[in-house]
Amino acid sequence: MYRRALFVGRFQPFHLGHLAALKWILEREDIVIIGVGSSQFSHDPLNPFTAGERVEMIWRVLMSEGLLNRCVIATIPDTDKKHSLWVSMVLHYAPRFQRVYTNDPLSQLLFKEANIEVSPIPMFKRGEYSATRIRRLIAEGKPWEHLVPREVARFIKEIGGEDRIRRIYRAFGTS
Amino acid sequence: MYRRALFVGRFQPFHLGHLAALKWILEREDIVIIGVGSSQFSHDPLNPFTAGERVEMIWRVLMSEGLLNRCVIATIPDTDKKHSLWVSMVLHYAPRFQRVYTNDPLSQLLFKEANIEVSPIPMFKRGEYSATRIRRLIAEGKPWEHLVPREVARFIKEIGGEDRIRRIYRAFGTS
Amino acid sequence: MYRRALFVGRFQPFHLGHLAALKWILEREDIVIIGVGSSQFSHDPLNPFTAGERVEMIWRVLMSEGLLNRCVIATIPDTDKKHSLWVSMVLHYAPRFQRVYTNDPLSQLLFKEANIEVSPIPMFKRGEYSATRIRRLIAEGKPWEHLVPREVARFIKEIGGEDRIRRIYRAFGTS
Amino acid sequence: MYRRALFVGRFQPFHLGHLAALKWILEREDIVIIGVGSSQFSHDPLNPFTAGERVEMIWRVLMSEGLLNRCVIATIPDTDKKHSLWVSMVLHYAPRFQRVYTNDPLSQLLFKEANIEVSPIPMFKRGEYSATRIRRLIAEGKPWEHLVPREVARFIKEIGGEDRIRRIYRAFGTS
Amino acid sequence: MYRRALFVGRFQPFHLGHLAALKWILEREDIVIIGVGSSQFSHDPLNPFTAGERVEMIWRVLMSEGLLNRCVIATIPDTDKKHSLWVSMVLHYAPRFQRVYTNDPLSQLLFKEANIEVSPIPMFKRGEYSATRIRRLIAEGKPWEHLVPREVARFIKEIGGEDRIRRIYRAFGTS
Amino acid sequence: MYRRALFVGRFQPFHLGHLAALKWILEREDIVIIGVGSSQFSHDPLNPFTAGERVEMIWRVLMSEGLLNRCVIATIPDTDKKHSLWVSMVLHYAPRFQRVYTNDPLSQLLFKEANIEVSPIPMFKRGEYSATRIRRLIAEGKPWEHLVPREVARFIKEIGGEDRIRRIYRAFGTS
Repeated sequence: MYRRALFVGRFQPFHLGHLAALKWILEREDIVIIGVGSSQFSHDPLNPFTAGERVEMIWRVLMSEGLLNRCVIATIPDTDKKHSLWVSMVLHYAPRFQRVYTNDPLSQLLFKEANIEVSPIPMFKRGEYSATRIRRLIAEGKPWEHLVPREVARFIKEIGGEDRIRRIYRAFGTS
Repeated sequence: MYRRALFVGRFQPFHLGHLAALKWILEREDIVIIGVGSSQFSHDPLNPFTAGERVEMIWRVLMSEGLLNRCVIATIPDTDKKHSLWVSMVLHYAPRFQRVYTNDPLSQLLFKEANIEVSPIPMFKRGEYSATRIRRLIAEGKPWEHLVPREVARFIKEIGGEDRIRRIYRAFGTS
Repeated sequence: MYRRALFVGRFQPFHLGHLAALKWILEREDIVIIGVGSSQFSHDPLNPFTAGERVEMIWRVLMSEGLLNRCVIATIPDTDKKHSLWVSMVLHYAPRFQRVYTNDPLSQLLFKEANIEVSPIPMFKRGEYSATRIRRLIAEGKPWEHLVPREVARFIKEIGGEDRIRRIYRAFGTS
Repeated sequence: MYRRALFVGRFQPFHLGHLAALKWILEREDIVIIGVGSSQFSHDPLNPFTAGERVEMIWRVLMSEGLLNRCVIATIPDTDKKHSLWVSMVLHYAPRFQRVYTNDPLSQLLFKEANIEVSPIPMFKRGEYSATRIRRLIAEGKPWEHLVPREVARFIKEIGGEDRIRRIYRAFGTS
Repeated sequence: MYRRALFVGRFQPFHLGHLAALKWILEREDIVIIGVGSSQFSHDPLNPFTAGERVEMIWRVLMSEGLLNRCVIATIPDTDKKHSLWVSMVLHYAPRFQRVYTNDPLSQLLFKEANIEVSPIPMFKRGEYSATRIRRLIAEGKPWEHLVPREVARFIKEIGGEDRIRRIYRAFGTS
Repeated sequence: MYRRALFVGRFQPFHLGHLAALKWILEREDIVIIGVGSSQFSHDPLNPFTAGERVEMIWRVLMSEGLLNRCVIATIPDTDKKHSLWVSMVLHYAPRFQRVYTNDPLSQLLFKEANIEVSPIPMFKRGEYSATRIRRLIAEGKPWEHLVPREVARFIKEIGGEDRIRRIYRAFGTS
């Protein structure tokens, strides 16, 4: 019987900390479902990339790392603050799993109340590898490419992601 | 530059006709995005399987066929009959593509009005390979396994899918 | 420790069959949560009464039967055909319970998949005590009052419910 | 003080019967709010045209008839069968009015329950001037132009509306 | 004819100030509908408890106080900031009433614009009896039990509510 | 062929800066669609007026300015932060147009990504003519009437808009 786990995040964007976490989980599990959360949002400072863009950047990394046959990508919408529905939403959108890896305290609480096993993930250079920090570096025109897998950097440039993030930060008054 | 296409369907379940269509498209395109539509629905006679279950059955087939590095799976919710929003929903949830393969006349109309190229798919033994027919065969307890890839048959049995379809048909009075 | 159960229905309207079922459940359980389903709908042929009207008619019956201290009323919205979210919706809107009494096959399936115990309810004069039949009798101007608790008959007349049902049947072309 | 009324319909499309009704209402009222209902839908057999297209066809007719200074156009979304919210939705989207003109029995019921005065409209050649019939004539490639104001016929042709309706009828299996 | 009133709040949790207000209203009215607002939310710092949990805590208090035959509990969802629909939502979910007791200025405005009579409620030790303060005391591990009816304190402990509130405060960074 | 443009805003309320912008656009375009955004909201400090009220105030100004035959009013709902759907929402609710006039950076980004031409609008006394400032002046009981077209001032007084804004500011703690 395979051990199967869910690794949940927003991946805005998918960075080297996420990749290190994924590899750490893959040492403990056979199959990892990568759950791309808040999938309905994009074009805001917390969520600049669409669901499809996040799926593509993760897929490119998995291909390059030779992990496509051990990882499945699933997008999971938010429940508009109706938190008691969220675990069911995850169970609907994700292939079946036996445990969840996440450091988000609300997700931990919700999965625990649903009797689903939750484990924390060790932080990999938390100060550096942070999606918030990467988005801000992009908005400010500073170097950020070394913080994400090469495929992600290339992809973000291909789709004009740097320009989009700068405009979003200006639009929302966060630059 | 890669040729990338979207192949859109509900895949309830993914059957041998879908697989033949996919292979036919892959002769013409480099990358195929498999768009799993009506992703929010399950447990009704038209949509017995959840989004996650459909993602898993397709992923298993792609793995077995050695196609994981040429196909990306994306789930796409319906827009509650607000059809004029549907193309945007697809563009949000799917990685970028240049053309769409579908035989659904409404999808064809909506993509055409959005100036996106649409191509039909040749039918592979349409009378036999039909998801509607497969669901009915399952509901009636008749043989259906030869109509889907081996991984799909195994998966449906693993999750108790035959029993679920029978109960759903009874619940909705369609058996 | 109290035995607590959910009794779920749409109660359009609450009739003598519902009351008999409730009493039968109360012989087996300490506390019954009466779950008023499809709570967001009204003014259509299947759902003529609002949530508040259904709560009031049940509350009046419970008062008259001396059952207010053993029954709690909870309204539960539908999930717009997203059936995989429905059990969570019930768990959110209803006080906690250990088992469910229902004869609806879809509810039975959904609760079973969520590992919640489900029991059927014996039918009490099913041919006679049917909400569908009562609504039709009202629409046709035939006697219906003997099929519901006295408090329900009085309440429906107080709010002009007979006239409303007739107009709804005409509006939807079902008379 | 001005007499102001609401004239509510789906206007799929706006035809000569609607125009006759509007003129009849304008003999009784100072200002008429034309409420374009089910505004969120399009591209289905009952609702082929978008909200914007319906607004434009009505606006062109009003201009040609010299009625722009006595009529205001307001689009009103449906409430997804939550009928008890519909009157509030109308009151939110429409400029204030004192009475409603409609022949739809459900609208009549809902406005009456909200203590808003409702009046029926005399039918103008009902057999001929029917939006359902006009859509079917278009789908079947038969003459329909004489049943709508000249501006509407021209507009539908401009946007390729005949082709769209034919495709929609084929897509939904209603041709 | 009975005097019937609505007493509306979020009751997160139901505290001694709420109970005093309820008794004060019951001196003026025959029947009180207790409207549990924002019913769809839970597991956030403003709304830690589900709708069902709030219904149960109020039901236990009413039983203990002998008030079940004069009070009806109704849960009422928010309208996602579409404030002009909120009064209709209340009228749909609550049994009929003639006036509203609330100190919330937005509710007062909305009911007044809908021509529904609104009365303020005298504050009972406002500094002490505040749901916000009680949630914070629980989050900080300080004594709070004396601020709620005994049944509410017992219920919150039964369901592990203190632990949930602490985790929620940590998750949302409000502790 | 007519030049047609969209002028999009929330118009809470429509002020003299909006009117100046509209006239400036009308020098460059034949037809202007006035898109009333965030149409589903009202009764909050950013959006005190309903969609219908905003439609009416704009319609009165257009009538008084003799512009009804060159301007169409269309209400456009928000997409609940699902920004990637917003352009489709606009295209559904608005009559067709070839370019957009707006100074909102997020709208500019979204239209550009959809390959729709966007132009900025010169600011007309930006410090003075600001809807935010006008709402605050009303809330504070200071003179504001000189900042809006005469018809708008009269309309706001007719519907008791000053009192409403004051109550809303108090309700939301922003006064």
